[in-house]
Amino acid sequence: MTAIPEPAKERLLQLMRFLEQNNGAPLTSAEAEVLTGWPSCTIRKDISYLADKTLPGGTAEEAGEGEGVCRKAGSAAGYSPGQLIPVIKKALGLDRRRRFCVVGLGRLGSAYLNFEAYELGEFELAAGFDTNVNRVEILKSPVPLYPAYKMAEVIGRFSIEIALLCVPGDAAQTVAEKLAAAGIRGILNFAPAALKLPPDLTVRNVYVADELRALAVRMG
Amino acid sequence: MTAIPEPAKERLLQLMRFLEQNNGAPLTSAEAEVLTGWPSCTIRKDISYLADKTLPGGTAEEAGEGEGVCRKAGSAAGYSPGQLIPVIKKALGLDRRRRFCVVGLGRLGSAYLNFEAYELGEFELAAGFDTNVNRVEILKSPVPLYPAYKMAEVIGRFSIEIALLCVPGDAAQTVAEKLAAAGIRGILNFAPAALKLPPDLTVRNVYVADELRALAVRMG
Repeated sequence: MTAIPEPAKERLLQLMRFLEQNNGAPLTSAEAEVLTGWPSCTIRKDISYLADKTLPGGTAEEAGEGEGVCRKAGSAAGYSPGQLIPVIKKALGLDRRRRFCVVGLGRLGSAYLNFEAYELGEFELAAGFDTNVNRVEILKSPVPLYPAYKMAEVIGRFSIEIALLCVPGDAAQTVAEKLAAAGIRGILNFAPAALKLPPDLTVRNVYVADELRALAVRMG
Repeated sequence: MTAIPEPAKERLLQLMRFLEQNNGAPLTSAEAEVLTGWPSCTIRKDISYLADKTLPGGTAEEAGEGEGVCRKAGSAAGYSPGQLIPVIKKALGLDRRRRFCVVGLGRLGSAYLNFEAYELGEFELAAGFDTNVNRVEILKSPVPLYPAYKMAEVIGRFSIEIALLCVPGDAAQTVAEKLAAAGIRGILNFAPAALKLPPDLTVRNVYVADELRALAVRMG
Protein backbone atom coordinates (compact mmCIF):
# COMPACT_ATOMS: atom_id res chain seq x y z
CA MET A 1 0.00 0.00 0.00
CA THR A 2 2.93 2.34 0.70
CA ALA A 3 3.62 2.38 -3.03
CA ILE A 4 0.60 4.64 -3.67
CA PRO A 5 1.92 8.22 -3.28
CA GLU A 6 0.22 10.29 -0.55
CA PRO A 7 -1.25 12.89 -2.98
CA ALA A 8 -2.69 10.06 -5.11
CA LYS A 9 -4.28 8.54 -1.98
CA GLU A 10 -5.93 11.86 -1.15
CA ARG A 11 -7.21 12.22 -4.70
CA LEU A 12 -8.55 8.65 -4.71
CA LEU A 13 -10.40 9.41 -1.47
CA GLN A 14 -12.01 12.46 -3.02
CA LEU A 15 -12.82 10.62 -6.25
CA MET A 16 -14.45 7.90 -4.12
CA ARG A 17 -16.62 10.58 -2.47
CA PHE A 18 -17.75 11.94 -5.83
CA LEU A 19 -18.56 8.41 -7.00
CA GLU A 20 -20.56 7.84 -3.81
CA GLN A 21 -22.57 10.98 -4.46
CA ASN A 22 -23.41 10.06 -8.05
CA ASN A 23 -26.37 7.87 -7.03
CA GLY A 24 -24.86 4.73 -8.52
CA ALA A 25 -24.52 6.22 -12.00
CA PRO A 26 -21.14 6.08 -13.77
CA LEU A 27 -19.11 9.28 -13.64
CA THR A 28 -17.82 10.20 -17.08
CA SER A 29 -14.21 11.21 -17.49
CA ALA A 30 -15.31 14.77 -18.34
CA GLU A 31 -17.60 14.98 -15.28
CA ALA A 32 -14.78 13.69 -13.06
CA GLU A 33 -12.49 16.42 -14.41
CA VAL A 34 -15.03 19.16 -13.64
CA LEU A 35 -15.87 17.83 -10.16
CA THR A 36 -12.32 17.20 -9.01
CA GLY A 37 -10.48 19.90 -10.90
CA TRP A 38 -7.77 17.38 -11.90
CA PRO A 39 -6.89 16.52 -15.51
CA SER A 40 -8.26 13.16 -16.63
CA CYS A 41 -4.70 11.81 -17.07
CA THR A 42 -4.09 12.38 -13.33
CA ILE A 43 -7.30 10.52 -12.47
CA ARG A 44 -6.37 7.63 -14.79
CA LYS A 45 -2.88 7.49 -13.30
CA ASP A 46 -4.29 7.39 -9.75
CA ILE A 47 -6.66 4.59 -10.68
CA SER A 48 -3.80 2.67 -12.31
CA TYR A 49 -2.20 2.31 -8.84
CA LEU A 50 -5.19 0.21 -7.78
CA ALA A 51 -4.47 -2.59 -10.24
CA ASP A 52 -1.54 -4.13 -8.32
CA LYS A 53 -2.71 -3.02 -4.87
CA THR A 54 -5.90 -5.02 -4.96
CA LEU A 55 -3.95 -8.15 -5.78
CA PRO A 56 -0.97 -8.23 -3.40
CA GLY A 57 1.41 -11.01 -4.38
CA GLY A 58 -0.92 -11.99 -7.20
CA THR A 59 0.20 -13.93 -10.26
CA ALA A 60 0.62 -12.31 -13.63
CA GLU A 61 -2.82 -13.56 -14.61
CA GLU A 62 -4.37 -12.06 -11.48
CA ALA A 63 -2.53 -8.78 -11.99
CA GLY A 64 -3.89 -8.75 -15.50
CA GLU A 65 -7.39 -9.23 -14.10
CA GLY A 66 -6.77 -6.35 -11.68
CA GLU A 67 -5.83 -4.06 -14.51
CA GLY A 68 -8.87 -5.29 -16.34
CA VAL A 69 -11.13 -4.24 -13.46
CA CYS A 70 -9.56 -0.79 -13.47
CA ARG A 71 -9.78 -0.41 -17.21
CA LYS A 72 -13.38 -1.55 -17.07
CA ALA A 73 -14.13 0.72 -14.09
CA GLY A 74 -12.68 3.63 -16.03
CA SER A 75 -13.83 2.88 -19.55
CA ALA A 76 -15.41 5.20 -22.10
CA ALA A 77 -18.74 4.70 -20.30
CA GLY A 78 -17.20 6.38 -17.25
CA TYR A 79 -16.04 5.38 -13.80
CA SER A 80 -18.40 2.85 -12.27
CA PRO A 81 -19.15 3.47 -8.56
CA GLY A 82 -20.13 -0.14 -7.93
CA GLN A 83 -16.84 -1.43 -9.27
CA LEU A 84 -14.44 1.29 -8.22
CA ILE A 85 -15.53 2.18 -4.66
CA PRO A 86 -14.79 -1.24 -3.08
CA VAL A 87 -11.44 -1.43 -4.89
CA ILE A 88 -10.39 2.01 -3.61
CA LYS A 89 -11.55 1.20 -0.06
CA LYS A 90 -9.60 -2.03 0.03
CA ALA A 91 -6.45 -0.51 -1.50
CA LEU A 92 -6.46 2.31 1.05
CA GLY A 93 -7.20 0.09 4.06
CA LEU A 94 -10.65 1.56 4.67
CA ASP A 95 -12.39 -1.81 4.74
CA ARG A 96 -12.67 -2.04 8.54
CA ARG A 97 -14.70 0.05 10.98
CA ARG A 98 -12.89 2.36 13.46
CA ARG A 99 -14.24 4.08 16.56
CA PHE A 100 -13.63 7.75 17.24
CA CYS A 101 -14.45 10.30 19.94
CA VAL A 102 -14.87 14.08 20.13
CA VAL A 103 -12.69 15.82 22.72
CA GLY A 104 -13.71 19.33 23.75
CA LEU A 105 -17.42 20.08 23.49
CA GLY A 106 -17.48 23.81 22.83
CA ARG A 107 -19.19 25.16 19.70
CA LEU A 108 -17.00 23.27 17.25
CA GLY A 109 -16.90 20.04 19.26
CA SER A 110 -20.65 19.96 19.76
CA ALA A 111 -21.11 20.65 16.03
CA TYR A 112 -18.99 17.60 15.18
CA LEU A 113 -20.73 15.58 17.89
CA ASN A 114 -24.01 16.08 16.03
CA PHE A 115 -22.63 16.18 12.49
CA GLU A 116 -24.86 14.66 9.83
CA ALA A 117 -22.29 12.91 7.68
CA TYR A 118 -20.35 10.27 9.59
CA GLU A 119 -22.51 7.42 8.37
CA LEU A 120 -20.08 5.96 5.92
CA GLY A 121 -19.77 2.62 7.67
CA GLU A 122 -16.06 3.15 8.22
CA PHE A 123 -16.26 5.30 11.33
CA GLU A 124 -18.34 5.05 14.46
CA LEU A 125 -18.68 7.94 16.86
CA ALA A 126 -18.38 6.33 20.30
CA ALA A 127 -18.02 9.08 22.94
CA GLY A 128 -17.52 12.76 23.73
CA PHE A 129 -15.35 14.33 26.45
CA ASP A 130 -15.14 17.72 28.14
CA THR A 131 -13.50 19.08 31.31
CA ASN A 132 -16.74 20.94 32.04
CA VAL A 133 -18.92 18.38 33.88
CA ASN A 134 -21.99 20.59 33.55
CA ARG A 135 -21.62 20.68 29.76
CA VAL A 136 -21.24 16.90 29.68
CA GLU A 137 -24.54 16.56 31.55
CA ILE A 138 -26.73 18.96 29.57
CA LEU A 139 -25.41 18.75 25.99
CA LYS A 140 -27.56 17.03 23.37
CA SER A 141 -25.63 14.10 21.94
CA PRO A 142 -26.18 10.88 19.96
CA VAL A 143 -23.49 9.11 22.06
CA PRO A 144 -22.54 9.02 25.77
CA LEU A 145 -20.54 12.00 27.06
CA TYR A 146 -17.94 11.75 29.83
CA PRO A 147 -15.92 14.14 31.99
CA ALA A 148 -12.33 14.45 30.72
CA TYR A 149 -10.81 12.58 33.66
CA LYS A 150 -12.49 9.39 32.40
CA MET A 151 -10.79 9.62 28.98
CA ALA A 152 -8.17 6.88 29.44
CA GLU A 153 -10.69 4.43 30.90
CA VAL A 154 -13.39 4.99 28.24
CA ILE A 155 -10.94 5.03 25.29
CA GLY A 156 -9.49 1.71 26.48
CA ARG A 157 -12.87 0.12 27.23
CA PHE A 158 -14.37 0.91 23.81
CA SER A 159 -11.13 0.51 21.78
CA ILE A 160 -11.44 4.05 20.45
CA GLU A 161 -8.67 4.68 17.90
CA ILE A 162 -9.25 8.25 16.73
CA ALA A 163 -9.94 11.58 18.48
CA LEU A 164 -11.38 14.77 16.99
CA LEU A 165 -9.50 17.37 19.02
CA CYS A 166 -11.77 20.43 19.37
CA VAL A 167 -10.33 22.10 22.49
CA PRO A 168 -9.02 25.71 22.51
CA GLY A 169 -5.53 26.18 21.06
CA ASP A 170 -3.84 26.75 24.41
CA ALA A 171 -5.14 23.44 25.82
CA ALA A 172 -4.46 21.31 22.73
CA GLN A 173 -0.93 20.05 23.50
CA THR A 174 -1.76 18.93 27.06
CA VAL A 175 -4.96 17.17 26.01
CA ALA A 176 -3.23 15.54 23.02
CA GLU A 177 -0.55 14.11 25.34
CA LYS A 178 -3.29 12.62 27.52
CA LEU A 179 -4.91 11.10 24.43
CA ALA A 180 -1.54 9.63 23.38
CA ALA A 181 -1.11 8.11 26.85
CA ALA A 182 -4.66 6.73 26.67
CA GLY A 183 -3.78 4.79 23.51
CA ILE A 184 -5.35 6.96 20.80
CA ARG A 185 -3.62 6.24 17.47
CA GLY A 186 -4.82 9.15 15.34
CA ILE A 187 -5.84 12.75 16.04
CA LEU A 188 -7.84 15.01 13.74
CA ASN A 189 -6.66 18.33 15.13
CA PHE A 190 -9.16 21.20 14.80
CA ALA A 191 -7.43 23.26 17.49
CA PRO A 192 -5.26 26.09 16.17
CA ALA A 193 -2.04 24.64 17.62
CA ALA A 194 0.89 22.58 16.32
CA LEU A 195 1.09 19.34 18.28
CA LYS A 196 4.39 17.69 19.24
CA LEU A 197 3.63 14.00 19.78
CA PRO A 198 5.31 10.59 19.54
CA PRO A 199 5.78 9.50 15.90
CA ASP A 200 3.55 6.42 16.31
CA LEU A 201 0.57 8.75 16.70
CA THR A 202 -0.76 10.11 13.40
CA VAL A 203 -1.97 13.73 13.42
CA ARG A 204 -3.95 15.46 10.70
CA ASN A 205 -4.45 19.19 11.14
CA VAL A 206 -7.68 20.84 10.02
CA TYR A 207 -6.97 24.52 10.58
CA VAL A 208 -9.73 26.67 9.17
CA ALA A 209 -7.25 29.54 8.83
CA ASP A 210 -4.96 27.33 6.72
CA GLU A 211 -7.93 26.13 4.67
CA LEU A 212 -8.81 29.78 3.99
CA ARG A 213 -5.21 30.44 3.01
CA ALA A 214 -5.09 27.38 0.75
CA LEU A 215 -8.32 28.52 -0.91
CA ALA A 216 -6.99 32.08 -1.35
CA VAL A 217 -3.74 30.81 -2.89
CA ARG A 218 -5.75 28.87 -5.48
CA MET A 219 -8.04 31.88 -6.11
CA GLY A 220 -4.96 33.98 -6.95
CA MET B 1 3.49 32.01 -9.08
CA THR B 2 1.93 29.14 -11.04
CA ALA B 3 5.40 27.56 -11.21
CA ILE B 4 5.19 26.51 -7.54
CA PRO B 5 3.49 23.07 -7.58
CA GLU B 6 0.20 22.88 -5.63
CA PRO B 7 1.49 20.31 -3.06
CA ALA B 8 4.54 22.54 -2.42
CA LYS B 9 2.22 25.51 -1.86
CA GLU B 10 0.22 23.55 0.71
CA ARG B 11 3.41 22.47 2.49
CA LEU B 12 4.75 26.04 2.50
CA LEU B 13 1.49 27.20 4.06
CA GLN B 14 1.80 24.64 6.83
CA LEU B 15 5.50 25.38 7.36
CA MET B 16 4.54 29.07 7.67
CA ARG B 17 2.02 28.14 10.37
CA PHE B 18 4.64 26.20 12.34
CA LEU B 19 7.05 29.14 12.03
CA GLU B 20 4.33 31.50 13.29
CA GLN B 21 3.77 29.30 16.32
CA ASN B 22 7.46 29.13 17.25
CA ASN B 23 7.37 32.46 19.12
CA GLY B 24 9.91 34.09 16.84
CA ALA B 25 12.58 31.45 17.47
CA PRO B 26 14.23 29.73 14.50
CA LEU B 27 12.90 26.27 13.69
CA THR B 28 15.74 23.79 13.27
CA SER B 29 15.70 21.45 10.31
CA ALA B 30 15.18 18.48 12.67
CA GLU B 31 12.28 20.22 14.48
CA ALA B 32 10.67 21.08 11.14
CA GLU B 33 10.90 17.41 10.10
CA VAL B 34 9.17 16.25 13.30
CA LEU B 35 6.45 18.93 13.18
CA THR B 36 5.59 18.58 9.51
CA GLY B 37 6.33 14.90 8.99
CA TRP B 38 8.16 15.72 5.73
CA PRO B 39 11.81 14.88 5.06
CA SER B 40 14.13 17.89 5.31
CA CYS B 41 15.01 17.60 1.61
CA THR B 42 11.32 18.18 0.76
CA ILE B 43 11.25 21.26 2.99
CA ARG B 44 14.47 22.62 1.43
CA LYS B 45 13.12 21.97 -2.06
CA ASP B 46 9.86 23.80 -1.25
CA ILE B 47 11.80 26.77 0.11
CA SER B 48 14.00 26.81 -2.98
CA TYR B 49 10.90 27.72 -5.06
CA LEU B 50 10.72 31.01 -3.15
CA ALA B 51 14.05 32.30 -4.47
CA ASP B 52 12.82 33.24 -7.96
CA LYS B 53 9.20 33.90 -6.96
CA THR B 54 10.03 36.78 -4.64
CA LEU B 55 11.95 38.49 -7.42
CA PRO B 56 9.72 38.36 -10.51
CA GLY B 57 11.67 39.54 -13.53
CA GLY B 58 14.71 40.11 -11.35
CA THR B 59 18.24 40.25 -12.71
CA ALA B 60 20.70 37.44 -12.13
CA GLU B 61 22.19 39.43 -9.25
CA GLU B 62 18.78 39.89 -7.66
CA ALA B 63 17.94 36.23 -8.13
CA GLY B 64 21.23 35.45 -6.42
CA GLU B 65 20.16 37.64 -3.51
CA GLY B 66 16.84 35.83 -3.40
CA GLU B 67 18.57 32.49 -3.13
CA GLY B 68 20.80 34.00 -0.47
CA VAL B 69 17.77 34.96 1.62
CA CYS B 70 16.40 31.44 1.32
CA ARG B 71 19.71 29.83 2.14
CA LYS B 72 20.07 32.19 5.11
CA ALA B 73 16.47 31.59 6.21
CA GLY B 74 17.16 27.87 6.10
CA SER B 75 20.75 27.68 7.38
CA ALA B 76 22.22 25.36 10.01
CA ALA B 77 20.80 27.71 12.67
CA GLY B 78 17.31 26.78 11.42
CA TYR B 79 14.47 28.43 9.53
CA SER B 80 14.02 32.03 10.67
CA PRO B 81 10.35 33.06 11.07
CA GLY B 82 11.14 36.76 10.66
CA GLN B 83 12.84 36.18 7.32
CA LEU B 84 10.80 33.33 5.90
CA ILE B 85 7.17 34.21 6.77
CA PRO B 86 6.98 37.44 4.70
CA VAL B 87 8.69 35.74 1.74
CA ILE B 88 6.21 32.83 1.80
CA LYS B 89 3.23 35.21 2.14
CA LYS B 90 4.34 37.30 -0.81
CA ALA B 91 5.16 34.30 -3.01
CA LEU B 92 1.73 32.77 -2.35
CA GLY B 93 -0.22 36.01 -2.81
CA LEU B 94 -1.31 36.22 0.82
CA ASP B 95 -0.11 39.79 1.27
CA ARG B 96 -3.54 41.38 0.93
CA ARG B 97 -6.59 41.19 3.20
CA ARG B 98 -9.74 39.38 2.00
CA ARG B 99 -13.25 39.49 3.42
CA PHE B 100 -15.26 36.34 4.04
CA CYS B 101 -18.70 35.38 5.32
CA VAL B 102 -20.28 32.35 7.01
CA VAL B 103 -23.35 30.94 5.23
CA GLY B 104 -25.62 28.66 7.25
CA LEU B 105 -25.61 29.30 10.99
CA GLY B 106 -26.41 25.89 12.45
CA ARG B 107 -23.99 24.28 14.91
CA LEU B 108 -21.03 24.23 12.56
CA GLY B 109 -21.68 27.68 11.08
CA SER B 110 -22.09 29.32 14.46
CA ALA B 111 -18.89 27.59 15.62
CA TYR B 112 -16.99 29.13 12.71
CA LEU B 113 -18.74 32.46 13.25
CA ASN B 114 -17.18 32.61 16.72
CA PHE B 115 -13.93 30.77 15.95
CA GLU B 116 -10.89 31.99 17.86
CA ALA B 117 -8.22 31.78 15.19
CA TYR B 118 -9.03 33.98 12.19
CA GLU B 119 -6.81 36.81 13.35
CA LEU B 120 -4.03 36.33 10.89
CA GLY B 121 -4.41 39.71 9.25
CA GLU B 122 -5.17 38.06 5.90
CA PHE B 123 -8.86 37.37 6.41
CA GLU B 124 -11.64 39.45 7.84
CA LEU B 125 -14.96 37.92 8.84
CA ALA B 126 -17.55 40.39 7.55
CA ALA B 127 -21.01 38.80 7.83
CA GLY B 128 -23.12 35.73 8.52
CA PHE B 129 -26.24 34.52 6.70
CA ASP B 130 -29.07 32.11 7.45
CA THR B 131 -32.51 31.42 5.99
CA ASN B 132 -33.89 31.28 9.55
CA VAL B 133 -34.63 34.93 10.43
CA ASN B 134 -35.11 34.06 14.10
CA ARG B 135 -31.65 32.53 14.27
CA VAL B 136 -30.16 35.62 12.62
CA GLU B 137 -31.76 37.79 15.31
CA ILE B 138 -30.80 35.84 18.44
CA LEU B 139 -27.41 34.29 17.63
CA LYS B 140 -24.31 35.65 19.37
CA SER B 141 -21.90 36.94 16.74
CA PRO B 142 -18.88 39.25 16.42
CA VAL B 143 -20.18 40.50 13.02
CA PRO B 144 -23.59 41.52 11.61
CA LEU B 145 -25.93 38.67 10.63
CA TYR B 146 -28.42 38.87 7.75
CA PRO B 147 -31.33 36.82 6.41
CA ALA B 148 -30.29 34.79 3.37
CA TYR B 149 -32.35 36.85 0.92
CA LYS B 150 -29.96 39.78 1.53
CA MET B 151 -26.89 37.77 0.49
CA ALA B 152 -26.30 39.31 -2.94
CA GLU B 153 -26.73 42.85 -1.65
CA VAL B 154 -24.45 42.46 1.40
CA ILE B 155 -21.74 40.49 -0.46
CA GLY B 156 -21.60 43.22 -3.11
CA ARG B 157 -21.69 46.11 -0.64
CA PHE B 158 -18.80 44.80 1.50
CA SER B 159 -16.80 43.23 -1.37
CA ILE B 160 -16.88 39.82 0.30
CA GLU B 161 -14.77 37.37 -1.73
CA ILE B 162 -15.01 34.10 0.21
CA ALA B 163 -17.87 32.10 1.77
CA LEU B 164 -17.64 29.37 4.40
CA LEU B 165 -20.52 27.13 3.31
CA CYS B 166 -21.97 25.46 6.43
CA VAL B 167 -25.49 24.59 5.25
CA PRO B 168 -26.86 21.00 5.29
CA GLY B 169 -25.70 18.79 2.43
CA ASP B 170 -29.05 18.84 0.61
CA ALA B 171 -29.11 22.66 0.47
CA ALA B 172 -25.46 23.16 -0.50
CA GLN B 173 -25.73 23.21 -4.32
CA THR B 174 -28.63 25.71 -4.40
CA VAL B 175 -26.98 28.05 -1.90
CA ALA B 176 -23.59 27.78 -3.68
CA GLU B 177 -25.24 28.81 -6.96
CA LYS B 178 -26.70 31.89 -5.24
CA LEU B 179 -23.25 32.72 -3.85
CA ALA B 180 -21.75 32.37 -7.34
CA ALA B 181 -24.41 34.72 -8.73
CA ALA B 182 -23.69 37.18 -5.87
CA GLY B 183 -20.04 37.43 -6.95
CA ILE B 184 -18.33 35.18 -4.39
CA ARG B 185 -14.98 34.01 -5.83
CA GLY B 186 -14.08 31.22 -3.40
CA ILE B 187 -16.05 28.72 -1.30
CA LEU B 188 -14.74 26.71 1.63
CA ASN B 189 -17.29 23.91 1.51
CA PHE B 190 -18.03 22.25 4.87
CA ALA B 191 -21.29 20.78 3.62
CA PRO B 192 -21.16 17.07 2.77
CA ALA B 193 -21.97 17.63 -0.91
CA ALA B 194 -20.03 17.85 -4.17
CA LEU B 195 -20.65 21.26 -5.75
CA LYS B 196 -20.94 21.81 -9.50
CA LEU B 197 -20.07 25.44 -10.16
CA PRO B 198 -18.57 27.67 -12.88
CA PRO B 199 -14.79 27.17 -13.21
CA ASP B 200 -14.01 30.78 -12.25
CA LEU B 201 -15.24 30.02 -8.74
CA THR B 202 -12.67 28.19 -6.59
CA VAL B 203 -14.01 25.54 -4.21
CA ARG B 204 -12.10 23.83 -1.42
CA ASN B 205 -13.91 20.96 0.29
CA VAL B 206 -13.45 20.36 4.00
CA TYR B 207 -15.38 17.12 4.56
CA VAL B 208 -14.84 15.80 8.07
CA ALA B 209 -15.61 12.29 6.82
CA ASP B 210 -12.85 12.62 4.20
CA GLU B 211 -10.48 14.04 6.81
CA LEU B 212 -11.20 10.98 8.97
CA ARG B 213 -10.57 8.74 6.00
CA ALA B 214 -7.32 10.53 5.12
CA LEU B 215 -6.18 10.18 8.73
CA ALA B 216 -7.10 6.48 8.80
CA VAL B 217 -5.22 5.84 5.54
CA ARG B 218 -2.07 7.35 7.08
CA MET B 219 -2.59 5.40 10.34
CA GLY B 220 -2.59 2.16 8.33
